[in-house]
Amino acid sequence: MRGRQVFMDSLMAHGVDKIFGNPGTTESPLLDSLQNYPEIEYIVALHEGIAVGAASFYAQASGKTPVVNLHVAPGLGNGIGMMYSALKANSHMIVTAGQQDNRLRLRAPVLGHDLVSMATPVTKWAVQVEWADEMAAVMHRAFKVANEAPAGPVFVALPINVMEQETENCAGASSQMYAAPHPDLDGIAAITEVVKTAQSPAVVVSDDIARAGATDDLVALVEAMGAGVWFEAIRHHSAFPNRHPNAKDILPVDAAAIRGALHDADLVMLIGGPFFEEVWFTRGAPFPDGSKVIQIEESPARLAYNHPLDAGLVGHLPSTLRAMAQALQADSGYQAQAKSRNTALASQSVEAHAAYQARAQRAWDRDPISMPRVMAELNAGTPDNAVVVEEAITASL
Amino acid sequence: MRGRQVFMDSLMAHGVDKIFGNPGTTESPLLDSLQNYPEIEYIVALHEGIAVGAASFYAQASGKTPVVNLHVAPGLGNGIGMMYSALKANSHMIVTAGQQDNRLRLRAPVLGHDLVSMATPVTKWAVQVEWADEMAAVMHRAFKVANEAPAGPVFVALPINVMEQETENCAGASSQMYAAPHPDLDGIAAITEVVKTAQSPAVVVSDDIARAGATDDLVALVEAMGAGVWFEAIRHHSAFPNRHPNAKDILPVDAAAIRGALHDADLVMLIGGPFFEEVWFTRGAPFPDGSKVIQIEESPARLAYNHPLDAGLVGHLPSTLRAMAQALQADSGYQAQAKSRNTALASQSVEAHAAYQARAQRAWDRDPISMPRVMAELNAGTPDNAVVVEEAITASL
Repeated sequence: MRGRQVFMDSLMAHGVDKIFGNPGTTESPLLDSLQNYPEIEYIVALHEGIAVGAASFYAQASGKTPVVNLHVAPGLGNGIGMMYSALKANSHMIVTAGQQDNRLRLRAPVLGHDLVSMATPVTKWAVQVEWADEMAAVMHRAFKVANEAPAGPVFVALPINVMEQETENCAGASSQMYAAPHPDLDGIAAITEVVKTAQSPAVVVSDDIARAGATDDLVALVEAMGAGVWFEAIRHHSAFPNRHPNAKDILPVDAAAIRGALHDADLVMLIGGPFFEEVWFTRGAPFPDGSKVIQIEESPARLAYNHPLDAGLVGHLPSTLRAMAQALQADSGYQAQAKSRNTALASQSVEAHAAYQARAQRAWDRDPISMPRVMAELNAGTPDNAVVVEEAITASL
Repeated sequence: MRGRQVFMDSLMAHGVDKIFGNPGTTESPLLDSLQNYPEIEYIVALHEGIAVGAASFYAQASGKTPVVNLHVAPGLGNGIGMMYSALKANSHMIVTAGQQDNRLRLRAPVLGHDLVSMATPVTKWAVQVEWADEMAAVMHRAFKVANEAPAGPVFVALPINVMEQETENCAGASSQMYAAPHPDLDGIAAITEVVKTAQSPAVVVSDDIARAGATDDLVALVEAMGAGVWFEAIRHHSAFPNRHPNAKDILPVDAAAIRGALHDADLVMLIGGPFFEEVWFTRGAPFPDGSKVIQIEESPARLAYNHPLDAGLVGHLPSTLRAMAQALQADSGYQAQAKSRNTALASQSVEAHAAYQARAQRAWDRDPISMPRVMAELNAGTPDNAVVVEEAITASL
């Protein structure tokens, strides 16, 4: 069989159902193969940035691994900005680009370049398939690396001659992978003791919670702690229901301001980061002086990356948060304290909402129109099943 | 003074009159400085690819060194495709991007990234200014490297805090640079002897001739040789007048087809490359068996890069081509041979033009309309001062 068949079989074996692309000559072997794979839809975008951005959002929304198909160096180059975004968003996806015949590599052919060097800064792994015999192995590893936590894009360059080369090495995918480890029970016990010493715990949450499907377990943990929940400023998902009485605000984007927002906390628990994606440099740590700092992550790479911790814990987030919640729920004395904090948080939430409404009402008839009224009018006029795409990041900070 | 003043003074000292950009927060120090430099126009583009592409064409058309101003990692990323094009086009230009405060570099701030790694594959040099004291030196070297043959884009990352830092190191530009060396006279003599042995010389030309202003000297050399002139397929400039009787065709884009086009030649002289920008791999050399191969370039980097030469010569192209022409013009016996070849080339040119017109006439009333008629009608309807932007590369190959 040819390299391009192994490529397409690899996509099928890994559950790919969408290719987002903007192809040219070097992608013709892939295009020629599409008719034999009607399960895979090829969606053409008029600019590479759109193809990459659409794939990243498809990965986030569907959980499936999408493929992007770009055209040699200019096409890949046009996609680099959105590949950076996909890397920061931890989108599991495979970005491919056709490459000129690799027997031309020393002769700087038209549109050709060192594609792997171009893609390396914005991917978890970048590789060129140099002969058809390694197509199956490259694609198998590409899907593995893209999907491992923290997830992110992988780049694969596909020389046009390699796609047409013959090989006997078939595509393959691993089947049952048990890669969601339970946390260290000693860690659960030790961290539970630290948490119990806190009078005013704060939890800071980010996207990995939603991606791991751990929101329900997070709610149980937060209620068992009697903790307020803060949101990392840069996020793609809803990690915690923002109308829950324990929900506080989006954190600001510099260390001093974060420290100010969390000033009441004597313990800060970070879950599902990275923490923190700052915009401005300010001096000092983002935590109140003397507070304990705990972090819980799916991947060791996230843990203690930016800040020294008092304790850290790695584990599949649903089972880890559930184990933490159960350990705290088992202590009835602690639960009485947590319940009293939850009552106070609920009152604060009602007060904060009322204060916001009062501010909005005071400015209701202002000309030009106030932003709270804009939001209220939009809210009133929007059906319940509307999808809101928020791209007003600067205004929301 | 502040880093941003040194930056702007450097632009003034190097004759910059245009900045093409798509700015954001990190570029605000540069934007704040513009009001003090009314000689420099800031042209905003709605996509970074347009800003970079416009700058590249401005460099090619004006000879001046333009500056591009992009916004951190996503902005730079969106510009990488067109930076590749600027690199291949040898456009002398400085691409800048604002960078987050460099005291945040370990903390992966929002939109920040290793910008130098991102830009390196598509630039001659990529550098981040780490403190204001080195701003003047970085900018001085950036202009030097961008303008040296073969020219190309240089990338400079500008951290927002460095732009506001104080320094006493002023901007500076070198004034009189004598960097257009005359060729080795022994080389002229030796190559002249090789050229005189050829009965059927062919000259292949590319963009560096036009950029060096060597077209008139090329015409004199070609006429002194009695050589046909072929054009490298990928070009931005007119290196040789295409209605000159010695002008032949655009070369094809693979070695075997180039060898076929040049099959009559017993000597191939390459001038102002790179040679050749191929699209397809085919076996063998792009030169007819037994032909001599000579290359003349402004920069040693171009010489003998892809193909072994029988002789190579480095020098400022106008004076080098003039010296070659004068050496050949001094030999009256050789000039008689050259004149006879020129007469034959002129006849071939008339015949080729007549044959084209005959083909066009035969298909004149074809439906759908033939491409030669489309071109003839466009030509008839286009005023003499019209600028034609040809982007039909695939159709023209």
